[in-house]
Amino acid sequence: MKLDFNNMMAEFVGPHGITPAAIAAIEGKIGEAVKAMEIKRPQMQWRDLPHNQGRVVEEILEYVAEMSPKIGALVVLGIGGSALGPIALQQALNSPFYNLSDDLRAGRPQLFVLDNIDPATIGDLFAMLDLETTLFSVVSKSGATSETMSQFMIVKQMLEEKFGKEGAAARIVCTTDKSEGNLIKIAQAEGYKTFVIPSGVGGRFSQLCPVGLLPAAFCGLDIRALLAGAAAADSACQNPDFWQNPAYIFAILHYLALKDGKNISVMMPYADSLKFMADWYAQLWAESLGKKFDNSGREVFVGQTPVKALGATDQHSQVQLYAEGPFDKVMVFLGVEDYGADIDIPETFTDMPSLGFLGGHSLAKLLKTQQMATEYALLKAGRPNMTISLPEVNEYTMGQLFYILEVATAFAGELLEIDAFDQPGVEEGKNATYAYFGRPGYEAKKAELNARPAKSPKYIC
Amino acid sequence: MKLDFNNMMAEFVGPHGITPAAIAAIEGKIGEAVKAMEIKRPQMQWRDLPHNQGRVVEEILEYVAEMSPKIGALVVLGIGGSALGPIALQQALNSPFYNLSDDLRAGRPQLFVLDNIDPATIGDLFAMLDLETTLFSVVSKSGATSETMSQFMIVKQMLEEKFGKEGAAARIVCTTDKSEGNLIKIAQAEGYKTFVIPSGVGGRFSQLCPVGLLPAAFCGLDIRALLAGAAAADSACQNPDFWQNPAYIFAILHYLALKDGKNISVMMPYADSLKFMADWYAQLWAESLGKKFDNSGREVFVGQTPVKALGATDQHSQVQLYAEGPFDKVMVFLGVEDYGADIDIPETFTDMPSLGFLGGHSLAKLLKTQQMATEYALLKAGRPNMTISLPEVNEYTMGQLFYILEVATAFAGELLEIDAFDQPGVEEGKNATYAYFGRPGYEAKKAELNARPAKSPKYIC
Repeated sequence: MKLDFNNMMAEFVGPHGITPAAIAAIEGKIGEAVKAMEIKRPQMQWRDLPHNQGRVVEEILEYVAEMSPKIGALVVLGIGGSALGPIALQQALNSPFYNLSDDLRAGRPQLFVLDNIDPATIGDLFAMLDLETTLFSVVSKSGATSETMSQFMIVKQMLEEKFGKEGAAARIVCTTDKSEGNLIKIAQAEGYKTFVIPSGVGGRFSQLCPVGLLPAAFCGLDIRALLAGAAAADSACQNPDFWQNPAYIFAILHYLALKDGKNISVMMPYADSLKFMADWYAQLWAESLGKKFDNSGREVFVGQTPVKALGATDQHSQVQLYAEGPFDKVMVFLGVEDYGADIDIPETFTDMPSLGFLGGHSLAKLLKTQQMATEYALLKAGRPNMTISLPEVNEYTMGQLFYILEVATAFAGELLEIDAFDQPGVEEGKNATYAYFGRPGYEAKKAELNARPAKSPKYIC
Repeated sequence: MKLDFNNMMAEFVGPHGITPAAIAAIEGKIGEAVKAMEIKRPQMQWRDLPHNQGRVVEEILEYVAEMSPKIGALVVLGIGGSALGPIALQQALNSPFYNLSDDLRAGRPQLFVLDNIDPATIGDLFAMLDLETTLFSVVSKSGATSETMSQFMIVKQMLEEKFGKEGAAARIVCTTDKSEGNLIKIAQAEGYKTFVIPSGVGGRFSQLCPVGLLPAAFCGLDIRALLAGAAAADSACQNPDFWQNPAYIFAILHYLALKDGKNISVMMPYADSLKFMADWYAQLWAESLGKKFDNSGREVFVGQTPVKALGATDQHSQVQLYAEGPFDKVMVFLGVEDYGADIDIPETFTDMPSLGFLGGHSLAKLLKTQQMATEYALLKAGRPNMTISLPEVNEYTMGQLFYILEVATAFAGELLEIDAFDQPGVEEGKNATYAYFGRPGYEAKKAELNARPAKSPKYIC
């Protein structure tokens, strides 16, 4: 794996780039952040997941070996970090047509991740599934996530009506905290199989524990290689020379760009397989770094908005803006050396200049060339960009990528002097939902909602 | 359909909102834009699509009736506007499991939209399809889109090898310009069925011509109702009172917010069905308004970056940033009154406060309540937001929505004094691709690429 940030530097990209002097000017700050990462490591329990999940992996593989022959579909009930990592990994390593093709699946179960509560989607899914051979995996650390727990309550009733208590219990597995919260209590009472989200591991940093490992193992992915990649990345991410530490330099460049008014970070993979990696990163970067207060309690309203794009597709959608719009972005390309497949473009229409030149090349070559061309066009337009290249998309490189971006996010949090691990800004919305639903204890919030000034009809059309 | 922009106004949302005085201050500018929309209407041929596609609809329905019994899958080869509209409409009106379920499809063909050139995706798809019963729909106005035409060249060879020239021709349909470009010439020479993209209709404004109508009709959607909805929207969008013109007020509020530093426009539907509407809008808004030069040739580097989100899912991903990060966003919620389905949450776990309150409600109620709660939380955090509500998601309301957002985009272009209909910023990347591929005529660009300064290894890790 390679991070090439030449095009972030002013000597290549011009005045909107970053100078070595700008980096030198914050070397003290960087040094403090490096130290903080070392001191705080024991509280960042997610950093140890590549090293301490060995027993868990064995237990997962045993469970998968036992259940797999019995099931045709695995349905994950989870939202946020419980969904985005599993989706990203599945999309990265299995075919986009995995669910559609028995051949591509080769005996493994279909995978559905229910990351929303849209009744139309859920109704259609339940009508389509053979419940007899469906396993439901409920994922919630707190056991209090309204979306996931509502789904669970519906599924539990549906299965119990059909298969009785015991039959339902055989079709439900829970991934949650070891001892805290509702879900573990319910699971123990009902006799559900459980896996543990280790304490100190928050949702968006949970991909390398059973949250990510269990569905991956069901879908035939090599979860040991995933953890090995992450473990290797952990070594690279401990390099105190930040120029050679991919996580640190990624964070430093983004930090300086943000300070320079670049409030948008675009992740643009040039591979369908990595499309949902950009979704996973979007949660990580947004929720970790978008904060009202810094560590000393000052109002800072800081954050950088992640944007998901896909090459070459978004060359026909977003690149016009990226090349000509405001200088408000950092671009991160994800490239792949070996797509694992290729298709030749035949030499037809040689008499038509706009088509003939394509013949004799291949789709992989065209896609990679378009990546280079877009990188060049943005460079020429003075737009800072960097490129992460994977030799190929496999479990090992995905483990590296997940881990490096997690460490980069934590390090960016240090540079911004904020808490990268909380999400206080979502409480207001949760509380308003509780109040609207009449949950006991939220009467004051309900009164507040009722006291809202009436909307003005002149602002409605 | 209703546009509620109360929460955009300073009297509700506070200092980051818009005052009536700020709108009054640009009334002259607005008046000019209103006039320009009337004067330029003859050049905006896409505005007439709701009214002049009657014969085309008949031809499409005849073709679909003829072909539908023979085919099991429709594969659209198209990128950008040729893909985003069809995907958005299909996702809006058919089940997300349409391709997976014969029951949900009820005899209609599967739909695949190949909007990228990833060889792994395309290889898997071709291996999975029954080519005997697959229809390929090639969509490119110019017939020079490298991605689409590469796919077409591959498909043509594959089909001709298998079925001969005539058999291949029976399995290919082209949607392109009436007379200009390669694709119409090839189609005529090979005897392919063709549909016309009317002149003056650019890719991102093409959803209401055969680009969008043909795949929709194959998938059982009522394309007459789609056009009727758009026609109704056309009336609403001609109202010279901009307070009552949904397209104009949408554009005006975004324009003022952008001038006030809000360089990001988030579209956040609270319905799985509208998720890809946000993708379609992202192209429309980005490519139309992201421009380096204004109409008088001044460098302006203007544009507002569209961001796609989904409720409730992204409450667990992006809302933390939206609520606590910089004041750099306008939020547009898309709400739905009637989801067309619902599921009750059973009254279980009544002894657990964080679960018991959910029982007795329904998923639709929970989703709508979360939308209200998020709207409230963002209002309270001083974040300007507006809500477009659809009574239900059907062909008619989708036609309205497409059309209003198109007119809004054109009107925003007038306010920004830029050309909303070109995309000069993508030429550099195209030219670099041609040069890398050795296309004749691009030798100078090739030399320019070769003369790039070498990358510095110290900026690689």
